[in-house]
Amino acid sequence: MSFFEAMKKVASKAREASRKVSCAEGSARNLAITELAELLQAEKDFIFAENRKDLEAARKNGLDAARLQRLEITESVLEYMIKGCEEVAAQGDPVGEISKMERRPNGMMVGRMRVPMGVIMMIFESRPNVTVDAAVLCLKAGNAVILRGGSEAIHSNLALAALLRKALERAGLPGDAVQVVEVTDREAVSELLKMDEYIDVVIPRGGEGLIRAVVQQATMPVLKHYKGVCHIFVDKSAEIPKAMDVIKNAKVQKPGVCNALECLLVHEDIAEDFLPSLGTLLSACGVTLKGCPRAMPLLGEKAVAAEFDDWGREFLDLTLAVKVVCGQDEAQEHIARYGSNHSEVILTRDHARAMRFIREVDASMVGVNASTRFNDGGQLGLGAEIGISTSKLHAYGPMGATELTSTKFVLLGDWHIRN
Amino acid sequence: MSFFEAMKKVASKAREASRKVSCAEGSARNLAITELAELLQAEKDFIFAENRKDLEAARKNGLDAARLQRLEITESVLEYMIKGCEEVAAQGDPVGEISKMERRPNGMMVGRMRVPMGVIMMIFESRPNVTVDAAVLCLKAGNAVILRGGSEAIHSNLALAALLRKALERAGLPGDAVQVVEVTDREAVSELLKMDEYIDVVIPRGGEGLIRAVVQQATMPVLKHYKGVCHIFVDKSAEIPKAMDVIKNAKVQKPGVCNALECLLVHEDIAEDFLPSLGTLLSACGVTLKGCPRAMPLLGEKAVAAEFDDWGREFLDLTLAVKVVCGQDEAQEHIARYGSNHSEVILTRDHARAMRFIREVDASMVGVNASTRFNDGGQLGLGAEIGISTSKLHAYGPMGATELTSTKFVLLGDWHIRN
Repeated sequence: MSFFEAMKKVASKAREASRKVSCAEGSARNLAITELAELLQAEKDFIFAENRKDLEAARKNGLDAARLQRLEITESVLEYMIKGCEEVAAQGDPVGEISKMERRPNGMMVGRMRVPMGVIMMIFESRPNVTVDAAVLCLKAGNAVILRGGSEAIHSNLALAALLRKALERAGLPGDAVQVVEVTDREAVSELLKMDEYIDVVIPRGGEGLIRAVVQQATMPVLKHYKGVCHIFVDKSAEIPKAMDVIKNAKVQKPGVCNALECLLVHEDIAEDFLPSLGTLLSACGVTLKGCPRAMPLLGEKAVAAEFDDWGREFLDLTLAVKVVCGQDEAQEHIARYGSNHSEVILTRDHARAMRFIREVDASMVGVNASTRFNDGGQLGLGAEIGISTSKLHAYGPMGATELTSTKFVLLGDWHIRN
Repeated sequence: MSFFEAMKKVASKAREASRKVSCAEGSARNLAITELAELLQAEKDFIFAENRKDLEAARKNGLDAARLQRLEITESVLEYMIKGCEEVAAQGDPVGEISKMERRPNGMMVGRMRVPMGVIMMIFESRPNVTVDAAVLCLKAGNAVILRGGSEAIHSNLALAALLRKALERAGLPGDAVQVVEVTDREAVSELLKMDEYIDVVIPRGGEGLIRAVVQQATMPVLKHYKGVCHIFVDKSAEIPKAMDVIKNAKVQKPGVCNALECLLVHEDIAEDFLPSLGTLLSACGVTLKGCPRAMPLLGEKAVAAEFDDWGREFLDLTLAVKVVCGQDEAQEHIARYGSNHSEVILTRDHARAMRFIREVDASMVGVNASTRFNDGGQLGLGAEIGISTSKLHAYGPMGATELTSTKFVLLGDWHIRN
C-alpha cells in the first residue's frame, strides 16, 4: 500500500468517525474521557513498559537530556494526564449551544448553533502527554482527531492510542475517532496535508521549522504559533518595586516557554531610577542582560551590549534584552516591528496609557500590570488548552475546547419564502 | 521591477496601512465610507467612461452576454453600490467591543476585545461592484485590503480604486488601506499568495477552478466556498401546499445562485400524494425534473431519469433532481454524501424530526420550513456580506463585517504575578 493509500484510509476513517462523534451526546463523549482516565491508571505498567522502549532507543540514538526528559512518562506525568482528563470531562459541553437567536422582521427565528469542527489533525514533537491532552480536548468538542507525534515516541503513542480506542468503544463511540499515525515517514504527513476534503484543520506544535513546513504544504487551514517574543513596557508612571516583581516573574519563573519575557522596554524618564536596581535583582537570579547603548551604563557591570539581532529574538533562557525608549510611541513601534503577536504588557499607573496600549497593540494577549506568563488557557479561564494561536483567523490566543468548534446558522421558519 | 518586488511593495504598504486603520476611530472609518458614497455619485461620468473601456475590450474579445452584463456598471448598479456604502456606514462598529470580561480567582480581569484581522486579500472575477462592496466591508472592520479583480474589469476597478483612495484621504486615513492590484498576470497573484507575513487571510470569490488554485498556492488561511448543492427534505408530515410554495421559491426565484435548491428528497410515505402536483407546478414554471426510479412515475411525463452524477450536482439553472427516500436516515445520509455544507432544509410538522435535522446536518445554514434562499447575510440579519463560507474555520455561513474581525485577550491586572 502506498503512503497515499494508507493515509487516505486513515483520513476517510476519521471523517466517517467524526460524523458519529459530532452527533453523539455530551454524556457519551465525557464517558469516553473518564474511561480513558481509568484505563491510564489501570494500565500504567503497560504504558511505562512501552515508554521504556522509546527511551532506550532514544538513548542509543544519543538524544540530549532535555529531549529525553520530555519523552519520559513518569508517575507524575501520568498523574497529570489523568487529572487533565478528569478536568476536561467536568467542563460544560462546548457543543450544541444556540446563541443570538433573534426574530427577523418576517417572523423567522435565526440563531447560531455551536458545532464541532470535524476532523482535526495534530502534528507534534516528542512529548507523549500531548497525545492524551490533544485527543481529549478534540473529543470533548465532538471532533475526530488524527495524531502524528514524533517518531521517537512511537511506542508510547501507540500504547496510548490503544487505550484511547478502548475508552471510545466502552463509551459506544467509534474507535477511529482518535487515530495515531503509525507511519512516521515525512512523506506520509505530506499526503495527509493535501487531504482537505477529509481534514478540516491542522494544528502543528513544535519548532518553527516544523510549523513552516506544515504551512507550506497544507491545503487545509493551519492554527499555529511560531514563537513568543514577549515584551514588557515600563511606563514612567510604573510602581518600581511592583514592576520589578512582575518583570522577575515574567523572565525567571519559567524562561524556556513561549510566554516568558524576552525584551524589556523602559521609558527614559524612569530608566535611571529603575534599571540599576533591576540589574542587581536580575543578575542575582542569573539573568544575562543585553542592553541598548542608553541602558548599558545603568544595568551594572555584568550587562553586555545587545547585538542588532537580539531585538525580536526568542532567547528561551535566562537572557533579557533591555532598551530605553522615548515614550509609548517608540515602545509600541518596537513591539509592532519585533514582537510576534504573542503576549505584550504595559506596567503603568496611568489609565489613559493603559487603555491606549491594550487597544493599539496587536497581540493574542495584551495586558496591564501583570506578568506575560498569564497567557495560558488555564490562567485565562479556558481550562485545558491545545496551544496558543498567534494568527488571527478563527482563534487568537490560547485555544480550549470551545476554540475547536465552529457555529452554523439555524433558521426556524413558519413556511417562509423569500420575496 | 519583478513581480515579486512589485507585489512585496503592495503587501508591505497594506500591512503598514492596516496598523493605522486598525487604530483609527470608527467615526473616521465611517467617514471614509460616506465620502466614497458621495464620490461615487459625483464622479459617475468618470466611472461610466472607464467602465465603457472595459466593455468595449470585452466585446472585441467576444465575451458572452452573461459576463458582459456582470461587467457593466449601469445607473442602477451604481445606485446599489452607493446604498451599500450608506448601509454599512450606518451599522454599529464591529471593532473594540470587549466581551466575557470576568474576574479570575486571583482578582485579575480577563476579557476579549474584538480587533481587525489585519490585511485581507480578495480575489474575484469580473463584477466591478464587488470592488466597492469588499473594500467597504473590510474597511468597516478596520482592515486594509488588497483587491485583485478580473483583468476584463481593470479600467473600472482602477477608477473605483482612485475614488476609494480619495475617500480614505479625506477621512484622514492612509490611501494604501485599499489597493487594487494593477498587474493582472497570474504570476503576480501567485507571489502575493506566498506573503503570509503581510497578508492575514485571502478570500477568493468565483468559480471552483479559481478557488482551488488559490487554496493550492496560498500559505495564509483561505475563507472559501466552492459551491452550493442545497437540498430540501420533505418529511412525511409536511404540509403539502405550503411545502410546494417553499420548494418553488427555493428553485425558481433565482436559480443561478449558490443558495438555490438543487435536489429534493421526499419521504416515501408522502411521495404519491406530493410529487404529481409538484411535478405539474414546477413543469409549468419551466423546471426540468430529473427523478430517481421511484420518483419517475410520479413526476409527470416531462420528467427525465436522473443520471448517477446528477446527485451532488450544482445545476445553477431550472433543473431539479428528485429522489424518494425511506425516511430521515436516508435523507441525512444523502445530504452528508452529496451536499456541499451550504444550505439544507427540512419541511415537517414534527418537532423531534426538525430538532434532529438541525442538530445533525452539517451545513453553514440548516433550516426548518423555510426556503434555502435565506442563506444570505442580509436575510439572516448580518447586513452586507463578503461571501458565504462553507468551511468551518473562523466563519461558517455568510460573512459580514464582524466575520472580518478576530478577538484578542485583554488582561487587566493589579501587578499580578504567576505562582
